[in-house]
Amino acid sequence: MNIILLSGGSGKRLWPLSNGIRSKQFIKIFKNSSGQYESMIQRIYRQIIDIYKDAEITITTSKSQVSAIYNQLGSNVNVCVEPCRMDTFPAITLAAAYLYDVKKVPASEAVVVCPVDPYVDSSYFSLLQKLEGLCLMENVNIALMGIEASYPSEKYGYIIPEDNNYISKVKAFKEKPDKETAENYIKNGALWNGGVFAAELGYLLDKAYELEKVRDYKDIYLKYSTFDKRSFDYAVLEKEKDIYVVRFSGEWKDLGTWNTFTEAVHETSIGNATLGRGCDNVHVINELDIPILCMGLQDIVVSASPDGILVSDKEQSSFIKPYVDKMDNIIMFAEKSWGSFKVLDVESESMVIKVTLKHGNRMNYHSHENRDEIWNVIKGQGKVIINDKERVVTTGDIVTIKAGCKHTVIADTELKMIEVQIGKDISVNDKIKFKL
Amino acid sequence: MNIILLSGGSGKRLWPLSNGIRSKQFIKIFKNSSGQYESMIQRIYRQIIDIYKDAEITITTSKSQVSAIYNQLGSNVNVCVEPCRMDTFPAITLAAAYLYDVKKVPASEAVVVCPVDPYVDSSYFSLLQKLEGLCLMENVNIALMGIEASYPSEKYGYIIPEDNNYISKVKAFKEKPDKETAENYIKNGALWNGGVFAAELGYLLDKAYELEKVRDYKDIYLKYSTFDKRSFDYAVLEKEKDIYVVRFSGEWKDLGTWNTFTEAVHETSIGNATLGRGCDNVHVINELDIPILCMGLQDIVVSASPDGILVSDKEQSSFIKPYVDKMDNIIMFAEKSWGSFKVLDVESESMVIKVTLKHGNRMNYHSHENRDEIWNVIKGQGKVIINDKERVVTTGDIVTIKAGCKHTVIADTELKMIEVQIGKDISVNDKIKFKL
Repeated sequence: MNIILLSGGSGKRLWPLSNGIRSKQFIKIFKNSSGQYESMIQRIYRQIIDIYKDAEITITTSKSQVSAIYNQLGSNVNVCVEPCRMDTFPAITLAAAYLYDVKKVPASEAVVVCPVDPYVDSSYFSLLQKLEGLCLMENVNIALMGIEASYPSEKYGYIIPEDNNYISKVKAFKEKPDKETAENYIKNGALWNGGVFAAELGYLLDKAYELEKVRDYKDIYLKYSTFDKRSFDYAVLEKEKDIYVVRFSGEWKDLGTWNTFTEAVHETSIGNATLGRGCDNVHVINELDIPILCMGLQDIVVSASPDGILVSDKEQSSFIKPYVDKMDNIIMFAEKSWGSFKVLDVESESMVIKVTLKHGNRMNYHSHENRDEIWNVIKGQGKVIINDKERVVTTGDIVTIKAGCKHTVIADTELKMIEVQIGKDISVNDKIKFKL
Repeated sequence: MNIILLSGGSGKRLWPLSNGIRSKQFIKIFKNSSGQYESMIQRIYRQIIDIYKDAEITITTSKSQVSAIYNQLGSNVNVCVEPCRMDTFPAITLAAAYLYDVKKVPASEAVVVCPVDPYVDSSYFSLLQKLEGLCLMENVNIALMGIEASYPSEKYGYIIPEDNNYISKVKAFKEKPDKETAENYIKNGALWNGGVFAAELGYLLDKAYELEKVRDYKDIYLKYSTFDKRSFDYAVLEKEKDIYVVRFSGEWKDLGTWNTFTEAVHETSIGNATLGRGCDNVHVINELDIPILCMGLQDIVVSASPDGILVSDKEQSSFIKPYVDKMDNIIMFAEKSWGSFKVLDVESESMVIKVTLKHGNRMNYHSHENRDEIWNVIKGQGKVIINDKERVVTTGDIVTIKAGCKHTVIADTELKMIEVQIGKDISVNDKIKFKL
């Protein structure tokens, strides 16, 4: 089975756990059967492999997510990198061409497209095979999954089938109706559109040519930024006549808001947290080192990361976006392919950062124009290179780097350093990269 | 007027703003008329001086609070230091002897005793003069303030007067009744005991001799730890026949819990906080650098400091103590007479601290057995002394201090440093002090 997993944008709706560089699908929050925490993308990847051992999975995503994907899924996964952030039609087009040109998948094979962020059980994945078979049948161009609605949501798109059979031709699509309309739709057998469908690879390639006059993977990659930003739903699904829907009635949760997200988390608290007397339906997720104490709360989510602290009524949490947009989103913490960093202190003319390099990794060789840096090695061993001179460093060593000096560090074990930056106009943009 | 202000213990009920070394009376949270934040003790001190310009105010407190008092009230205030933490009878006895022996107050003068932590208006202080006059009258040994109860509290002590006159003889004292009994008391004219009273200095000295066989200030100071731990209420008030109460009907708030504390704070948020849609009767006090966002909360207090984060229903916040008792109370932040410190990072064999020294101040000259330290000066100028050798330091300088080295720093301007501690068994107790 060929599967394209769409790994979407940054998303602020799960602030402060998701931010400009950490998307919600990478938050490790679901305990798997062996007691370890996994992220949405790890969970869905594992669920697919459990059922389809030999599935050819391709993840389409933007550059900024590549290292997180390799960190979490290993460096053997197929990643189709979008040159810039567009919408689902360009992303699917790029991935289809990647499968055809790079992976040499025949145009006659089916491709299943799934988002990475629903929380579902294994029956969801069993259905993928049905979609795959269906889309290859005569007079079928697209086979779509329709999710049986559990309530009249105003947030989702609805699929209106021609009848109430298990498999039905699609009559129409309706976007985000009001509650009353949604109730009516559901009464008449409408289904949620969860963004899961199957089509022949050749069909996807034809659509690419029809709408953007491109066929070749490299060509698509180069022209990517010039494409129209349009969703696959808008560009293709809603215009397609030969489209069928298969009903899905298993567990399906869209983890787009704190409210739905916490429904999928089995523990009431993760991290250093105490739920005191009078707490009911409370979830605490604490990524800070300091304790959180909750008392007398009902239906509340508390989430804390180095970026900030959210305390919200679960239902109200869906209105978070405009508030987060307004904040100065200085990113205080990030996991990278080489390790992680955490901002410890910010003053007008200094900044203190804790840098953790994984064993065998290194920074880019770089310099800064407007700041000196001091590295205090607090754990591990490595080598620093300052203006092309190499030196071994270990716990307790200090490295001073004046503005203008080229510098890097290579971790021979896990290496932790406190980096003290001193200067006027300290900025992440003050960085000149060099080749080593 | 002679006033003894009782500045009580650490108190965990306002965690995380109060902790083992910061008592609630030092939290700067009340905006005064000139728009500046003041603490309870600053507020009450100012209120007394506003009415009684020449009042002789003595603050009795433990050693651990002395620098906070000097920081907040200036170094000219009279502080009577308790050698160890006892109860109100020993504290008042010590202060009375201090007034007589050190301050040479005649035994025939009245002394007014007040706690530092009620939130009151100026009418409260006007009443002190009435108490002062009353206690000097014949057949009166103690003149007590009785606070008109605004609700049948189960937390307070009640004064049962003989009649409902403005001034009345006291018939009995009742401690913490249940709600029904409290309602009955109030119906019959009972008053809350707010711990405010006046007595002749000679009377207080006599009680000291009667109960502990001591008279002299130095003697009391030396024997202090051997005294019985008993409250003044229990030891004296409840046994006194010639005791009168004066009714007080002005604003009086005991700021002992987050619920009552927030009633006295005029702003709904202090620090980096956003109250989003659906918030009602919410208070946020944020001493952290990161933002707090609240949505859809009712009757909630959110309080964050480097020690932790509290999210509580206001009423339920009064049950906080046992939860805080159970926490590992590592103190992550403290204001000291010389400046402040803040823990930025803790690892098993390292710790990072930000140290701020006020202009003209210095650390003790000291050494550590089990850790090396690195000072990264991020702001200001000063002098360090390492093993008796002095050296000037300024922004960007690094000082390495090996275990065993004597060291100190003297701030010639405000001086900020990042101190990186490295070693096994890092502990605040690993400190040997030396004379310079």
